Amino acid sequence: MNTLLLGIGAWDPEPWRARFKAVLPDWDIVLHTEPFDRRAIHYAAAWKQPEGTFAGLPELEAIFSLGAGVDHLFKDTRLPEGVPVVRVVDPDLTTRMSEYVVMHCLMALRRVRIYDGFQRDRKWIDLRDQPQASDLQVGLLGMGVLGQDAAMKLRTMGFRVAGWSRRQKDVAGVAMHHGDEGLEAVVASSDILVAMMPLTPDTTGILNARLFARMPKAEAIGGPVLINVGRGGLQVETDILAALDAGTLGAAVLDVFETEPLPEASPLWLHPKVTATPHNSAISSPPAIAAYVAGQIKAHMAGDALTNVVDPKHGY
Amino acid sequence: MNTLLLGIGAWDPEPWRARFKAVLPDWDIVLHTEPFDRRAIHYAAAWKQPEGTFAGLPELEAIFSLGAGVDHLFKDTRLPEGVPVVRVVDPDLTTRMSEYVVMHCLMALRRVRIYDGFQRDRKWIDLRDQPQASDLQVGLLGMGVLGQDAAMKLRTMGFRVAGWSRRQKDVAGVAMHHGDEGLEAVVASSDILVAMMPLTPDTTGILNARLFARMPKAEAIGGPVLINVGRGGLQVETDILAALDAGTLGAAVLDVFETEPLPEASPLWLHPKVTATPHNSAISSPPAIAAYVAGQIKAHMAGDALTNVVDPKHGY
Repeated sequence: MNTLLLGIGAWDPEPWRARFKAVLPDWDIVLHTEPFDRRAIHYAAAWKQPEGTFAGLPELEAIFSLGAGVDHLFKDTRLPEGVPVVRVVDPDLTTRMSEYVVMHCLMALRRVRIYDGFQRDRKWIDLRDQPQASDLQVGLLGMGVLGQDAAMKLRTMGFRVAGWSRRQKDVAGVAMHHGDEGLEAVVASSDILVAMMPLTPDTTGILNARLFARMPKAEAIGGPVLINVGRGGLQVETDILAALDAGTLGAAVLDVFETEPLPEASPLWLHPKVTATPHNSAISSPPAIAAYVAGQIKAHMAGDALTNVVDPKHGY
Repeated sequence: MNTLLLGIGAWDPEPWRARFKAVLPDWDIVLHTEPFDRRAIHYAAAWKQPEGTFAGLPELEAIFSLGAGVDHLFKDTRLPEGVPVVRVVDPDLTTRMSEYVVMHCLMALRRVRIYDGFQRDRKWIDLRDQPQASDLQVGLLGMGVLGQDAAMKLRTMGFRVAGWSRRQKDVAGVAMHHGDEGLEAVVASSDILVAMMPLTPDTTGILNARLFARMPKAEAIGGPVLINVGRGGLQVETDILAALDAGTLGAAVLDVFETEPLPEASPLWLHPKVTATPHNSAISSPPAIAAYVAGQIKAHMAGDALTNVVDPKHGY
């Protein structure tokens, strides 16, 4: 019998065992906390596994992350070298992420928070200088599957779109930039900046005072807007708060935080220019993730190459 | 010299004279309050003209509305029969309307008002049953240029879209319905209903208790949502308030009202399930409107047919 090893350090693993049993009914699904034959493991799936969970598995052929991010996996210093790490790339997750990104770009454009205030004051006020989408540029930092889908939808809504990726890449209809100079160009020209990139040593803390200071004034929408749907580690929260108070940033929409759940004492909760959501911009349903992993395993056993394999040098 | 007559009863007419002078520099631009040669008038432009403004103009060839709506024009019982009335159909206006409609559909889907409440309470709560766009149907009442553009953009975002028009019409990718039976079908199946139709005797008060009662439960988003971006006369505000309080409606997004500006005493202002905006879902810039009218006049003088002529029998 084939055996799938689950290395789950953050969640209750039993529902995952049940989900995998549903899509791989002939398989043995074992948890890393249970005894098992280390030579029988060809495939493993993981979310925040304890250090060393996947060491000493001589037959291991692939490790699947149970989410889009893989930074949690690479924190394990004993992750076996040469074993492919695979990300979940789920169409549901992509759709939901684009819903969130497009919605918050439109809310910034149409100044929903300001009109909400007028409504609370029972004031019939029409700001007369309303820009339209084509007057604004949205800069997407990270142009993988998620970034490309958001770019297409933002363009349909009328926004100008610029994209940044670490390595050179072409995306139709998007002003693409790459490398450190490219980042400067996107930041300096984007009224709304959307952080969608993975968390790596290079991107840790990249959303900081220096970067905010280079954004344009974006007066048409009351100052430039930061949207972070990537990872909390990308942002320096004290810098975001200072930039909002200084007017360097007009607003921040944060779905991720340095510490999650966001501590009750954080000033981000009640800051009038902050929208905070509980890391739910894009979710995959767990059954869809299990089905995706099972599909990849079966295809790989049938001789196909794995898809969405992470490059360990770049961390995504 | 050619003469354009402006019949403007609601706004300061002088800025409009200047705008038309800018696009028709060789023309005489006269106001209905001034003396002018009644036989010299071939074209007129109007917004809420006084009763009879366009009577007794033997050479009149067309009347242009200075906005997308024409209900204000047809209130004039002495409007000359047989003279074409032309609406402004402006790409800017279409883009802005779709921004507003797509944004509010996404805000309903992603339950922004509920998450705003969690944030105010500093609570990290993820509603676990988040639907995605394809789980919801948006019903568009009115499938002219504005409705069709919104339909395309809502589909791109993943929503299912149904459309209703008085007369039969086909729109790619949209489940189209027409007539009274068609209206029932769209209302009964749409989680979010967007009123974009013109105000006519047939549509006055159509957004009422009877219609709300036929909407589906839409439990995934806390009840069905009404968005009115058409005309305030389409809605019965006491019925909207009662339906919100009874839970028949989950939320209402109103850009138009029975009386505008919305009176300070209206309970709509502070109702927790109402978003009220000051009739600014879609605006055209006045210079763009003047340019549009001038373009139609020049084309008509050169022998082209007028476009976007209103059918007086239907009122749009």
